[in-house]
Amino acid sequence: MVNRTVVRGGLVITASDEIHADVLIEDGRIAALATHGGDAAAAWTADRTIDATGKYVVPGGVDAHTHMELPFGGTFASDTFETGTRAAAWGGTTTIIDFAVQSVGHAVREGLDAWYAKADGKCAIDYAFHMILSDVNEHSLKEMDLLVGEGITSFKLFMAYPGVFYSDDGRILRAMQRSAVNGGLIMMHAENGIAIDVLVEQALAEGRTDPRYHGEVRKVLLEAEATHRAIQLARVADAPLYVVHVSAEEAVAEIAAARDKGLNVFGETCPQYLFLSTDNLAEPDFEGAKYVCSTPLRPREHQAALWRGLRTNDLQVVSTDHCPFCFTGQKELGRGDFSKIPNGLPGVENRMDLLHQAVVDGHISRRRWIEIACAAPARMFGLYPKKGTIAPGADADVVIYDPHAEQIISAQTHHMNVDYSAYEGKRVTGQVETVLSRGELVIDNRQFTGRAGHGSYTPRSTCQNLN
Amino acid sequence: MVNRTVVRGGLVITASDEIHADVLIEDGRIAALATHGGDAAAAWTADRTIDATGKYVVPGGVDAHTHMELPFGGTFASDTFETGTRAAAWGGTTTIIDFAVQSVGHAVREGLDAWYAKADGKCAIDYAFHMILSDVNEHSLKEMDLLVGEGITSFKLFMAYPGVFYSDDGRILRAMQRSAVNGGLIMMHAENGIAIDVLVEQALAEGRTDPRYHGEVRKVLLEAEATHRAIQLARVADAPLYVVHVSAEEAVAEIAAARDKGLNVFGETCPQYLFLSTDNLAEPDFEGAKYVCSTPLRPREHQAALWRGLRTNDLQVVSTDHCPFCFTGQKELGRGDFSKIPNGLPGVENRMDLLHQAVVDGHISRRRWIEIACAAPARMFGLYPKKGTIAPGADADVVIYDPHAEQIISAQTHHMNVDYSAYEGKRVTGQVETVLSRGELVIDNRQFTGRAGHGSYTPRSTCQNLN
Amino acid sequence: MVNRTVVRGGLVITASDEIHADVLIEDGRIAALATHGGDAAAAWTADRTIDATGKYVVPGGVDAHTHMELPFGGTFASDTFETGTRAAAWGGTTTIIDFAVQSVGHAVREGLDAWYAKADGKCAIDYAFHMILSDVNEHSLKEMDLLVGEGITSFKLFMAYPGVFYSDDGRILRAMQRSAVNGGLIMMHAENGIAIDVLVEQALAEGRTDPRYHGEVRKVLLEAEATHRAIQLARVADAPLYVVHVSAEEAVAEIAAARDKGLNVFGETCPQYLFLSTDNLAEPDFEGAKYVCSTPLRPREHQAALWRGLRTNDLQVVSTDHCPFCFTGQKELGRGDFSKIPNGLPGVENRMDLLHQAVVDGHISRRRWIEIACAAPARMFGLYPKKGTIAPGADADVVIYDPHAEQIISAQTHHMNVDYSAYEGKRVTGQVETVLSRGELVIDNRQFTGRAGHGSYTPRSTCQNLN
Amino acid sequence: MVNRTVVRGGLVITASDEIHADVLIEDGRIAALATHGGDAAAAWTADRTIDATGKYVVPGGVDAHTHMELPFGGTFASDTFETGTRAAAWGGTTTIIDFAVQSVGHAVREGLDAWYAKADGKCAIDYAFHMILSDVNEHSLKEMDLLVGEGITSFKLFMAYPGVFYSDDGRILRAMQRSAVNGGLIMMHAENGIAIDVLVEQALAEGRTDPRYHGEVRKVLLEAEATHRAIQLARVADAPLYVVHVSAEEAVAEIAAARDKGLNVFGETCPQYLFLSTDNLAEPDFEGAKYVCSTPLRPREHQAALWRGLRTNDLQVVSTDHCPFCFTGQKELGRGDFSKIPNGLPGVENRMDLLHQAVVDGHISRRRWIEIACAAPARMFGLYPKKGTIAPGADADVVIYDPHAEQIISAQTHHMNVDYSAYEGKRVTGQVETVLSRGELVIDNRQFTGRAGHGSYTPRSTCQNLN
Repeated sequence: MVNRTVVRGGLVITASDEIHADVLIEDGRIAALATHGGDAAAAWTADRTIDATGKYVVPGGVDAHTHMELPFGGTFASDTFETGTRAAAWGGTTTIIDFAVQSVGHAVREGLDAWYAKADGKCAIDYAFHMILSDVNEHSLKEMDLLVGEGITSFKLFMAYPGVFYSDDGRILRAMQRSAVNGGLIMMHAENGIAIDVLVEQALAEGRTDPRYHGEVRKVLLEAEATHRAIQLARVADAPLYVVHVSAEEAVAEIAAARDKGLNVFGETCPQYLFLSTDNLAEPDFEGAKYVCSTPLRPREHQAALWRGLRTNDLQVVSTDHCPFCFTGQKELGRGDFSKIPNGLPGVENRMDLLHQAVVDGHISRRRWIEIACAAPARMFGLYPKKGTIAPGADADVVIYDPHAEQIISAQTHHMNVDYSAYEGKRVTGQVETVLSRGELVIDNRQFTGRAGHGSYTPRSTCQNLN
Repeated sequence: MVNRTVVRGGLVITASDEIHADVLIEDGRIAALATHGGDAAAAWTADRTIDATGKYVVPGGVDAHTHMELPFGGTFASDTFETGTRAAAWGGTTTIIDFAVQSVGHAVREGLDAWYAKADGKCAIDYAFHMILSDVNEHSLKEMDLLVGEGITSFKLFMAYPGVFYSDDGRILRAMQRSAVNGGLIMMHAENGIAIDVLVEQALAEGRTDPRYHGEVRKVLLEAEATHRAIQLARVADAPLYVVHVSAEEAVAEIAAARDKGLNVFGETCPQYLFLSTDNLAEPDFEGAKYVCSTPLRPREHQAALWRGLRTNDLQVVSTDHCPFCFTGQKELGRGDFSKIPNGLPGVENRMDLLHQAVVDGHISRRRWIEIACAAPARMFGLYPKKGTIAPGADADVVIYDPHAEQIISAQTHHMNVDYSAYEGKRVTGQVETVLSRGELVIDNRQFTGRAGHGSYTPRSTCQNLN
Repeated sequence: MVNRTVVRGGLVITASDEIHADVLIEDGRIAALATHGGDAAAAWTADRTIDATGKYVVPGGVDAHTHMELPFGGTFASDTFETGTRAAAWGGTTTIIDFAVQSVGHAVREGLDAWYAKADGKCAIDYAFHMILSDVNEHSLKEMDLLVGEGITSFKLFMAYPGVFYSDDGRILRAMQRSAVNGGLIMMHAENGIAIDVLVEQALAEGRTDPRYHGEVRKVLLEAEATHRAIQLARVADAPLYVVHVSAEEAVAEIAAARDKGLNVFGETCPQYLFLSTDNLAEPDFEGAKYVCSTPLRPREHQAALWRGLRTNDLQVVSTDHCPFCFTGQKELGRGDFSKIPNGLPGVENRMDLLHQAVVDGHISRRRWIEIACAAPARMFGLYPKKGTIAPGADADVVIYDPHAEQIISAQTHHMNVDYSAYEGKRVTGQVETVLSRGELVIDNRQFTGRAGHGSYTPRSTCQNLN
Repeated sequence: MVNRTVVRGGLVITASDEIHADVLIEDGRIAALATHGGDAAAAWTADRTIDATGKYVVPGGVDAHTHMELPFGGTFASDTFETGTRAAAWGGTTTIIDFAVQSVGHAVREGLDAWYAKADGKCAIDYAFHMILSDVNEHSLKEMDLLVGEGITSFKLFMAYPGVFYSDDGRILRAMQRSAVNGGLIMMHAENGIAIDVLVEQALAEGRTDPRYHGEVRKVLLEAEATHRAIQLARVADAPLYVVHVSAEEAVAEIAAARDKGLNVFGETCPQYLFLSTDNLAEPDFEGAKYVCSTPLRPREHQAALWRGLRTNDLQVVSTDHCPFCFTGQKELGRGDFSKIPNGLPGVENRMDLLHQAVVDGHISRRRWIEIACAAPARMFGLYPKKGTIAPGADADVVIYDPHAEQIISAQTHHMNVDYSAYEGKRVTGQVETVLSRGELVIDNRQFTGRAGHGSYTPRSTCQNLN
């Protein structure tokens, strides 16, 4: 096994620095950084030397929101932990935080164990778990405490999906109160699902069954409302709050207002909200189904607010909410009834590239790219500085990124186990060249050299972003 | 001369990382960081080894707002560049950005050359200059362009002090328009001086002459108004804006509102606004004069808004506005007429300690301490990554900081050339132990080992914080 | 029967005018106004002349929120339609709009008919009904349309009281959608009852059973949240909204923000929120129970926001939410468990006087007094200009008000059927002297001359305040 | 001379009521209102009976902002008090408040006396004066007190027009402080003229000389800024504020925010901002000059905010800022230099009709029409209830308005002394039929029957709108 690797000549970019430095890796960790061309770096010997001249040397991506193999709407997300984490590696992501699911009427532990089992021995990169609480009660609240102790430090609740994942405001309040004590972080799917279901029923009754109606019934105002409500409940509980997949300008405004008050409220958005829109949902011949996810895609005008939120730090994290369903056989379940289309998009492989494209387009700086894709999710979910940076002591999750390479995103060439790409045909500048996970080569000059089982479960500390 | 220094065993803290690492310094620059106890660090040889076990290893402070030897109100700030930079070094600050002054009716160049001459050969640490524009006209606008080219990339304007530094809104707009083209950053003293002078005249006419009336006439609403106006003018000019010494909650709110819109508006506050209040201005026996500065100290309730602004990044920088005048002979000029008290407080030596106390008190995290005191001012004013961080390639401006030492701030023990301390008797935890400036020991285990003339003028690039 | 009455010499005050005029009443209606002392007035002959010299002549009050005989918590509000409307008359109120109640599982019509029967032949003054919808479903939505047709044009929903009156957001949305079509106005009790019930349960479990905990668990944030949510749902439905008994500053702010956007959102507050506070809830020996109502009394600081809202027209109406329960035997049901205290206060008799006291105290002008107590509720609920003004053609509901009389409010002297006064011992300036209802004397120089059955049911048109 | 007039059968509309009533007028005042068809009205005898069947009977308009014969830019507004007030009467306006002007270096009294002389014996309708203060100093502040005593209770200041009417913030603050004591109301032209003049100079230097650049340089942000500043200065002075001719959405927002805080801040807009836009300023062949006024016309999108402000009462008054200059010979002074175009539009004749059109268009209700055009300006400037309503005791300024008549606005048919109409060709529904001024017929079935000198100077009390 390789013990020492040196990466020479690249531009090392972290959330706060851009330096021309060589990087020494020993036994899976960053051992040293030294000025390129200086004596200290020159003295290093290594088993393997990677030439990064003209390239970026960046921390491996941390995707804090994936759903491998998720059961949803009578089917399963099409990426397994094996295929999904392999695709993640191809895209420069070296850690995912997936969601274990408690089912209604079952113990939290039962769900968590099931997910441990699904992932065990399958992953190409490191992984951790959030826990979805579908049934908040006295017993599951006690289990929360135990989970925080074993490194499951964040818990997702849903204000949408009545009858499935939905928690009412009382259950939400109880879980938030508990998290205020045990240090867990509540993650919220903020849409008023009770009201949305009325609009869904009315749309279907009126024959508005096309995928684009999925976007129309899940109204901006109902995302903003739920976001506001979640914030108020968190204030009552004196607990921090992380709002997942923020898509609407008005929801960003609620988060910004909360943060201006100094509240520990955080927001995540996803590439699909930054690059796609209701125009996609309206594609003919049921093609819109490919873009059905919740919160839904919004009119194009909302994108500016999301980019602004990322610049002003009112949004801190970009995750993918990767939850792929094949068009054929899965998305098609909803022909004639948009409410039966499985909700979710593929994306775990595309995130780092799309956000680099945002650098090229002038939306964000290079350091901010690394912050929202690597450092901030790592800190938010207790993985820092093990993950998310390049500094002595950190895990050697390192990506050699070619900022000049051009590529066209396509289902033909991607590695996710899904029969379409949400970004089919999009030309982007920049590409992952080589990826190390804890010092091991997973992608080597665009060859997959990793293996199922290399990735290991990573327990997490509590949120590192609290005032 | 020493060529290689190694700092071993400390906790290296930057704006984004906290790592147990050894630091190698070569020829005045950071050459490498390596895991403490690892092979790479062990291999380093050095002329000098500093043991930082149990200590913090942090970037030298960057104080972006000082006024050494400033002529004001018929007298001069009591610290020369020699005494002031020596005191700065004692306090862990290794770079100051002072203000050269254009006088009304004179060329900008004339003022700048005068300040170059004052500082030349005197400074114990590195220094740079902003330029105060007192007379915006066609000629001085052309000079702005030239100054940006030679590393003077920020220009201060005053909405206060009619007849002295004051610029009207037309001159402000012209300077902002020019800065939008030449890349300069406008720094604004935001108080409605025209209105304030009416209130000053009325107060004096009514016999309200005590120092505390200085605080009463310079009203919160008039700071907030000017802040709002400066922001609107910057929007008209499409130029960025940096508001100096923000003291009032309502002014923070104006800046926060601008930033929520995505504008390039930045805010600085100072330790005196965070730790002192109108209670000090009301001290009897004319002692309040010690605390006379503009913007003035505010009622204690405003402090919470300033701390919140620092946490939410609506305020980015803490500088000192160091501008000392001795109580005896200088502050006394204003006995019987508060408007004749020279405006300004000493503080360049206290900033790093007071902000570390804020860490101890729970107001900010350690990383945020370094960000607001070192990294953010360096980036704001084009000194990054030369200054403000510890990373290969950066200047070796390094402070060994003892987080457990206790000290009592006092004029008896401080090194600033002023006969009182604004924080007399305040007990703080944490103390600078050793300071290196470009690799040279300036403070060695609390002995001053530097010299006048070591510090060199540092030209700056333009603001590195613009979206 | 008297046909013609003339009121001479008073100051006639309406929502917009203050004029020295004589008023001619014929057959129960205002027939003419003429300058006092002029020829036109001099020409009038009358069966009865009332001398109003030195007095105000104002429209009879319209109390848009009363609950006579309401079943609640296993008991009934202690005022019947007979005792309650008589007390109303004593207090200068000549119209009440009470709430008929649909019970869960029952038809709306069934509830309405029950209330018709309760009131029929009992009332001393005119009355109308809103309808409480406790069970929104396809059938009750159809009944809404019919009720609008018969003059029941407003429908109250509850976001509080799960299991009793509570409607979830889906039902609320459906009712709002229907009201957008049929012209009804949704009235909302805006408190997040689901979350509040969690806090109630926790308080009781911890032994916090005193009445003051009623105020603590029904948090300001949960009123503000529900207010925001109701507004967003109304926006989705494109329907107007009237928020009842607003008590918290933050809820006023939500309404003000909605109105600044031009939305048809209206707000009501009540005298208890303007004059009482949590200090009352904290009175010892279970006396606090007298002040238990929902929304609850708030800390004294909230009063300023309510007065401001009334001045800026962000709040339009002051009603009483009159719902009395005797301390002995009724309020006492909640000894040892605040959640069992019947919710409600007496007040129908005190409203006009307390609001006149607000004129005396400088909170509002005389015209605004009449607007919020008479004209605005009449317009809001489709009774204008029949009720709420003094103008030719309007019903002759007229109050002769002595602005100089002094009185002390007390259960000893009030006419409501309840054994305590919420304002016991409060000294106020101003008193009702004489009251006419459709031209008939109901109170004559502080003698009750009315009778059960004079008051007649008054169907209403739809809201007259919509943009 | 006629002593008694009866108006029969119309719909009497005031700010708060709409009633079918006959109106009795005696000796120039409203003597009585009585139900149409009732005994009381039937008993009236009269010298003259006006049949208003099918018509509205409304108070005569109060135009609180006119500039007859104003000297501006080397010429004079083309309407004299004689021609202008005659045109006003044609348009249903029975009171104007014009602006007397203090010139720099001259006494206030001198300006006022000049305006008294200009108007004396010339006016067809009643008139009053505001005072423009161009030179705030100790002497003019003392004169303010005297003027309030003689019925000049409002004082206009300019933040625009440096060198002409402009007052700096110190002078503004002094005048506001004085008004806080003497009860005067400060009216503010809120534009940052100092900054605008820079933009004017730059535009002209770059050859942007067309009228449309008038609109571009007088930026929305600079109106909003000045509005905000005026509000803050008024807060410092603890004085009320009335902002004239508000045209920009962002300025409305500043006023709305102030009012939400409960401040006595009021706003006026004008028909030109409600019905015209920068499209007009951009008309070719120098036709844009017809629409040059300050504040300038804004892009069409701003109109919605103005209408909303009128509905929500964030704007209270619609005046005309009538200040006509003929296209030929006057507006033409600015060919080749938009800054030389005299600022101002004709409109005094069109206001009541245009606002009635707004009723037809659904922007406002009939009562709100009368409120913003009659009652609110009368109250704002101390003329109520003498002017602005129809109630016993009020002046008999009465308009019989035909709501169904159709007309086309045109310079061919208007009565203002100006060679163009700003609304040329606009078709509106509704027309003035008959006008009485203090009981005398001024317009009789669309014949002018008035005379110069009928109108009398009307002293005013102080603002009647203060909380």
